[in-house]
Order: sequence, then C-alpha cells, then structure tokens
Amino acid sequence: MPFQKVSIIGLGLIGGSLAWALKKSGEVREVFGIDLDGKSLDYAIKKRIIDAGSKELDGVKHSEIIVIATHVRLIPGIARSVFPLASKGSVITDVGSVKEKIIKEIKGSIPPHLDFIGGHPIAGTERSGIRVADYKLFQGKKCILTPTPGANKKALNKVRKLWETAGAKIFTMDAETHDRVFAYVSHLPHAVAYALINAVISQRAPSNILDLAGGGLRDYTRIGASSPDMWSDIFLSNKKNMIKAIEGFKTALDKIRDLIEKGDMKGLKKELGKAVTAKRVIDK
Amino acid sequence: MPFQKVSIIGLGLIGGSLAWALKKSGEVREVFGIDLDGKSLDYAIKKRIIDAGSKELDGVKHSEIIVIATHVRLIPGIARSVFPLASKGSVITDVGSVKEKIIKEIKGSIPPHLDFIGGHPIAGTERSGIRVADYKLFQGKKCILTPTPGANKKALNKVRKLWETAGAKIFTMDAETHDRVFAYVSHLPHAVAYALINAVISQRAPSNILDLAGGGLRDYTRIGASSPDMWSDIFLSNKKNMIKAIEGFKTALDKIRDLIEKGDMKGLKKELGKAVTAKRVIDK
Repeated sequence: MPFQKVSIIGLGLIGGSLAWALKKSGEVREVFGIDLDGKSLDYAIKKRIIDAGSKELDGVKHSEIIVIATHVRLIPGIARSVFPLASKGSVITDVGSVKEKIIKEIKGSIPPHLDFIGGHPIAGTERSGIRVADYKLFQGKKCILTPTPGANKKALNKVRKLWETAGAKIFTMDAETHDRVFAYVSHLPHAVAYALINAVISQRAPSNILDLAGGGLRDYTRIGASSPDMWSDIFLSNKKNMIKAIEGFKTALDKIRDLIEKGDMKGLKKELGKAVTAKRVIDK
Repeated sequence: MPFQKVSIIGLGLIGGSLAWALKKSGEVREVFGIDLDGKSLDYAIKKRIIDAGSKELDGVKHSEIIVIATHVRLIPGIARSVFPLASKGSVITDVGSVKEKIIKEIKGSIPPHLDFIGGHPIAGTERSGIRVADYKLFQGKKCILTPTPGANKKALNKVRKLWETAGAKIFTMDAETHDRVFAYVSHLPHAVAYALINAVISQRAPSNILDLAGGGLRDYTRIGASSPDMWSDIFLSNKKNMIKAIEGFKTALDKIRDLIEKGDMKGLKKELGKAVTAKRVIDK
C-alpha cells in the first residue's frame, strides 16, 4: 500500500472529497480526518469518507502526508500549529487557491525534519461542506503543485502521488506564476460575476428582472452564488494580482465600450472575435 | 387548424427552430421559409422543417403571420420590403434582441392594413445556423412581445398564439423597458464575457494559461464563443442602454476592487453576499 496514514485537516467539500477519494482508492491504510465540527466528523465516519477522526490537531502524528484543506486565511496558522506535532519525515501540503502569501508566512517556521509543498486542486462547485463531498470530484481535474526552488523531490513526489491517487492531473509551477495565472483564470471571473449580478439587481424595475434572464446570466448566477466568505478570503490573499487583473479586465471592457460608443461595427466584430477562439482551446 | 400560412424570413437557429416547432405542432397548414441561402432552404425542406420555401421575399403573400428572423440590423429594411408584399390582415413580427430601434425605424412605413408586433424569444446557444435548429428550442422558454401602445389586440394575440404553439411562455412589455432590461440581463453579460476572455488571453505567459482554467472560466468561454457578428449588431443597436449598463457594471466592480485594495474583509463579504441570493431567484 503506497500510503500508511494521510491526515486531512478540514472536512469541507475539498478535504472531504479528497479523503473519500483516497479511502475508495484502497491505496491508503488510514485516512484520518480533523475538523472542529463534530457533526462533520460523525458524518464522515458514518459515510466511510474517513477511517477515523479527531477535533484535535495532534491527530496528525505518524502521518506521511498532512493536507490542510481549510479556507486560505487559516492555512498559515494551522501549518505553524501542525509543525511541532508532525512526525519526522511528514510532508505537509495544502489546497489553498492562493500560494505565495501562504508560503511567505510559513517558510520561516518549517522545521528541517519536515517538508511543505503547496498545492491547489482546480475543482469545486458553488456549494460547500462535507455533505456535498464527492469522491469523483478530482477525477480528470488539474492539481497545481508549487514547490519552492529548494524543495525535496521525494516530498514533491509523495504529494503528486497522493493527488494522482484521487484522479487528478498534476501541473507544477512557482507560486508567483500560480497566483498571477489564477487571478486571471479563476479569481477575476468570480469577482466579475459578483459585480455583474450586483449591477443587474441594482436595477429595481421591473421587479422580476432576474426572471427575464436567459442562459447567459444563469452561468453568472451560478458563479456568483459561490461562498462570499471563501472568495473574500481568496481575493484579499491575492490582492496585488487581483487589482492588476481587474484593471486589465477594465481596459478590455473599455475597448468594447468605446467601440460601441463610436458605432464602429468592424472594430467591434474584430475585438469580440478575439475571444471566440478561446473556447476551442479550453474545450479540447 | 389555428394558422393557414406562416412565413419565416431567415432560416438560422431561431427561424429554423421556430419553423420546425410550428411544423411539428400540426397547428399550421403551411410553414413557408425564406432564405437567401439555397442550401439552408434545401436542408430545411429535406428535414421537413418547412413545407416550402423561396429565396424571394414575395413568398410572404397570403401569410397570416410573417416572422422576420434575421440579424437585428437587417430587420427594419426587410420589414419595409415586406410591407408592400404582405396580404391585407397579415401580422408582421420579428425575433430581434433589441426592439426600440426597430420600431422607431419602421413605424412610419407600416401600412394601415397590416400590423407589426415586436418579439424576442429568450433562447439560443452560442452556435448558429439551420443545422443546429431544434424544434424544442423554445419549450418552456420566455418570449417577450413589445406591442406599441395602440397595437391591435387581435394581432398581438395571433403572435402570442404562435409562440405558445412553439412552447414559449409570453411576457409583454414596452420596447423601452425591454431594451433596458435586456441590456442588463443579456447584452452586458455577453460584453463582459468577451472582455474577460480578451483580458485572460492578453496574458501571454504561460502559453497554456487557458488549459489551467477551472469551471468558472469555462462558463465565460461558452458565452464568449457566441457570434461576434450577431453581438456587435446587438450592442450597436442598443447603444444607449449598453453604455449605461457597462458603466453601472464598472461601478459595481470598482466597489469590489476598492474593498480588496483596502483589505476590508467584512465589507467585501457583504458586497459579494448581495449576489448570492440572485441564483435562488433565477433557479426557481
């Protein structure tokens, strides 16, 4: 069996789905869950998502891998609390949507007998919590790992193997690139969806304005229904890149706006045409 | 049989789907198609989407209803060409996504023996053309009718009956309200999706940036893959409302941007939270 014990801190949608995928794989002797919420633990044990669990962080001892699967802002603090408890040779990883800030905040406190490898599975829905966990969530999905330049190769391979066991496809990049790229391809689309919905509902008449919407707006409402708590956290943790991405987006929107104002049909068609090729790339 | 002859000008996704729905319903003795493209006509006849067809507009004579289902910018010109050809008592309608401009451009040329009722079915996909036509396209979908204040009730009821026969649910409103509402719930979401994709692809590194995207961006690429020709046309035909909607949206986005810059977690959560309720409304 490739893994003896894997501990997962935070049994939400991501942590719960990972635990369940590992459990189903039969490749981990013990999947151990840690969560402050006793009900989530009970549910996870009852549903055989985890083998055993605890509300206490010291449950992480003797784990080969410890996965911190909480909101981004809690990850550095939990990592620092886990370091003194983890057994020698443990690899600590996380699932945060932002990487640079986490690595910066913990790098001074990683003891020499432990390794930290940042991770970010590109999966999730607008819903959250253990009850929507799905052991197939990561199948065929991407998982980004962001090892620091001096990272231990063995540790990196362990984390890679873990996510592959859950069905994910691994990409590695440095944390800085990760945060810039995901500001554009994930965080910005969420900020824009929230803003769009807010702009629509600011139109008070007719009162059934949302009932009149077609398919276009429905896609936005799905994105815009994601957890405000989680996304506020992500936006603030990736502040510098978010501001840049929002400004880049406003420039692109103003180009379209100005072409509309000028009544420039030819220029507008060309500007909109640039976007069309993107679907072919993303669907392939 | 409620209808003797219905003519549809423009056998694209919308016109083709409407013709097919009417044909399948058995409520129309003759569904007549008009299109400049002989291949579309041949396909529509072969697939029994229409009973008969022509490249010439004079095929519209003896129709109870004439539906102009072309791009928005062509509708006023076609309507003016149809008026001298239509038989007494015909009702002319259209499927344009913008209504005020069309009505303004044709209202001086409607002969007293004809009626014009503006229409806008809220259906469609990012694809276009007769080959993606679907007789179920309008089932359970909304269709907005925008009769002018003095409109003939009988004519309005005929158009209503036509769309109900295709499975749509009718809403009526004035053209001005229609254009403001759809600037927000349909045209703005498309402009924003195009701008977002353009902003993402303006990031030249890494070259696989679109491969890294998760579900959030995929929704945008679907919207952003819609026909640039059709949407340029819609944006320009609804210019005044589009500029207002884009400015309203920028204000909403700047609110989020400023809360990120200030690091105001509480304010940001509140701002994002406003959008979340919209999904519940739209899904109900």
